[in-house]
Amino acid sequence: MATLGLIEYADASPEVKAVYDDIMTTRSTDWINNFWKALASDPVTLRRTWESVKQVMAPGALEALTKEMVYLAVSASNQCGYCIASHTAAARKAGMTGAQFAELMAVVGMANETNRLASGYQVEIDERFRT
Amino acid sequence: MATLGLIEYADASPEVKAVYDDIMTTRSTDWINNFWKALASDPVTLRRTWESVKQVMAPGALEALTKEMVYLAVSASNQCGYCIASHTAAARKAGMTGAQFAELMAVVGMANETNRLASGYQVEIDERFRT
Amino acid sequence: MATLGLIEYADASPEVKAVYDDIMTTRSTDWINNFWKALASDPVTLRRTWESVKQVMAPGALEALTKEMVYLAVSASNQCGYCIASHTAAARKAGMTGAQFAELMAVVGMANETNRLASGYQVEIDERFRT
Amino acid sequence: MATLGLIEYADASPEVKAVYDDIMTTRSTDWINNFWKALASDPVTLRRTWESVKQVMAPGALEALTKEMVYLAVSASNQCGYCIASHTAAARKAGMTGAQFAELMAVVGMANETNRLASGYQVEIDERFRT
Amino acid sequence: MATLGLIEYADASPEVKAVYDDIMTTRSTDWINNFWKALASDPVTLRRTWESVKQVMAPGALEALTKEMVYLAVSASNQCGYCIASHTAAARKAGMTGAQFAELMAVVGMANETNRLASGYQVEIDERFRT
Amino acid sequence: MATLGLIEYADASPEVKAVYDDIMTTRSTDWINNFWKALASDPVTLRRTWESVKQVMAPGALEALTKEMVYLAVSASNQCGYCIASHTAAARKAGMTGAQFAELMAVVGMANETNRLASGYQVEIDERFRT
Repeated sequence: MATLGLIEYADASPEVKAVYDDIMTTRSTDWINNFWKALASDPVTLRRTWESVKQVMAPGALEALTKEMVYLAVSASNQCGYCIASHTAAARKAGMTGAQFAELMAVVGMANETNRLASGYQVEIDERFRT
Repeated sequence: MATLGLIEYADASPEVKAVYDDIMTTRSTDWINNFWKALASDPVTLRRTWESVKQVMAPGALEALTKEMVYLAVSASNQCGYCIASHTAAARKAGMTGAQFAELMAVVGMANETNRLASGYQVEIDERFRT
Repeated sequence: MATLGLIEYADASPEVKAVYDDIMTTRSTDWINNFWKALASDPVTLRRTWESVKQVMAPGALEALTKEMVYLAVSASNQCGYCIASHTAAARKAGMTGAQFAELMAVVGMANETNRLASGYQVEIDERFRT
Repeated sequence: MATLGLIEYADASPEVKAVYDDIMTTRSTDWINNFWKALASDPVTLRRTWESVKQVMAPGALEALTKEMVYLAVSASNQCGYCIASHTAAARKAGMTGAQFAELMAVVGMANETNRLASGYQVEIDERFRT
Repeated sequence: MATLGLIEYADASPEVKAVYDDIMTTRSTDWINNFWKALASDPVTLRRTWESVKQVMAPGALEALTKEMVYLAVSASNQCGYCIASHTAAARKAGMTGAQFAELMAVVGMANETNRLASGYQVEIDERFRT
Repeated sequence: MATLGLIEYADASPEVKAVYDDIMTTRSTDWINNFWKALASDPVTLRRTWESVKQVMAPGALEALTKEMVYLAVSASNQCGYCIASHTAAARKAGMTGAQFAELMAVVGMANETNRLASGYQVEIDERFRT
């Protein structure tokens, strides 16, 4: 069970409800996932985290789908079960196909492999990469 | 210094030279970075790793630039100094702008933050994410 | 199931019982959690680990509650499910309030975010921090 | 060198200068460390990150020193060289003694050890920890 | 549920069946574990990953059992639940005893502890280790 | 520079000297590496850590060389620069050949890759691995 419990919309304070409403509007959805319900026990963290995620994930120099896939890549690399589940769903909603998912995971896997080969072999950074 | 040393092109065996040549041709470049020179002490690992990277990083369902940025995102998340330096260079060569880099890092940062909030709060995976 | 099984008090050898007794006395509790029952298949590791934890977690220059919260912070950062559950319980027993937990997680989250921003941007260590 | 370079105060735009000024005022210091100068290439991330850090690190249910030590504990656990250096300095400025630092590291070390023992032995979470 | 589902032998395409057959022959077993059934949605990644694992895990300068234990050690260190379960089974099949498992985990635990002490104390690499 | 400085043998207290002497005797060497000199500022942690390492790394159900290679594998996976350098030296002293090092790193790399594929694809643990 979530450490501080989950706060449902009906039980939420006005400030929490305001964040929930903004999440649903921004994401064009009618429900709130457990992550936000768990953070809601700390309304300050709830608001700050949501405002940050909203700003960071908005389309800009990178498309929304690319950002969702990067989020999923990092979550898979960190092996965060909740985040993999929720961001797989988010990336699919943003249009990720099965083929894109598979290629994404292939890149994540290779990066994790070569990251350790580079460190394990104590490879020095090339001069050309320093400038 | 790299654990098993770096093997320069001039000193390489024919099988290592063949990999070096393929790297330079595939990447349209005229030099080999230290990562491959370090792996070259083990030609079997050199060839397997290069063939895997070549296959995984080729454009497919995802564009080459997207793949390079995902590689950099994972390397930054894992804090691999060599890999951050080399894949920042690779992503730039593939067209990554400063604005794209900055947004990429913002996503990586947020994912690492919320990964720990999800785990730390012991958030249960929503039923909707399980199906 | 735990790899080598769980050893209950009634089934424990005298040397394992001695450690179990010391755990219960030191922690003013009447039960042993699964972590120790799993380690008990290797009495040498059981004793060494318990003696180390007992020494490290005793109040000293840092208060017991602070130490429990740091333990929880590291476990959340590492995303170890068992450790988050057990150390959340331990920190609460030591007096951690819901508000303290929430602030702790906020710090853990920010640290994980800025750790990756610092690495990803390849920020050089300031001279003032080196001395 | 930092990927997008470092922006010195004299060369900063008004919006970046405003953040720099707030950092110096909040921290009662007269200089800006490289982390912020690196982020300054992306003023939106600079402001968001600084506002978040300022909010999270302010004394609340936890004291400022405890928060600085938790930040350092997470950075050491993640092995982020820059962050360890900068947050060691910050914790010392907040009053951390050598003895406190040593106990902090001892806790970080033990947590990292037992996190892997719990996972490696596949220890199931005790019922008492689930409620 | 696995993101792209699990592909059973009876439902597999000829190219996937060929990999499944090779796995069963190489491992002298009559079943395929879920990891491969999940990868089978991407036959290219399935084949590449299997060929790599087959090559890397074959006895060479290191014995098969040693390699299995190293694989388990890394998986425990990374806290990958699936991998710990599957590689514990694989290591046992290769002959790992309970005593060997316990010593392996003790080494993994200590390495994770001292890794953080080395980083946290900002220990400089000795000249003798650089040459 | 190490956070609390390095304590040389000539400047050490009797209790620190006793640990230094035991390290040199146990390892058949005439010098102390920086890791221990850094920990020496906290004699309690110095002694506890050394006693633990001595116990864990002694030959038992696993040979000394195997243990050194596992230590190096974990350090490479964690990307701890100091630990990779020091444990590469230790493993070589224990007899690790270049070919063994290369195979070790190949296993570490593959484990890190498949750990993320297993997590990223959300692969469920097979029933056979649970018993």
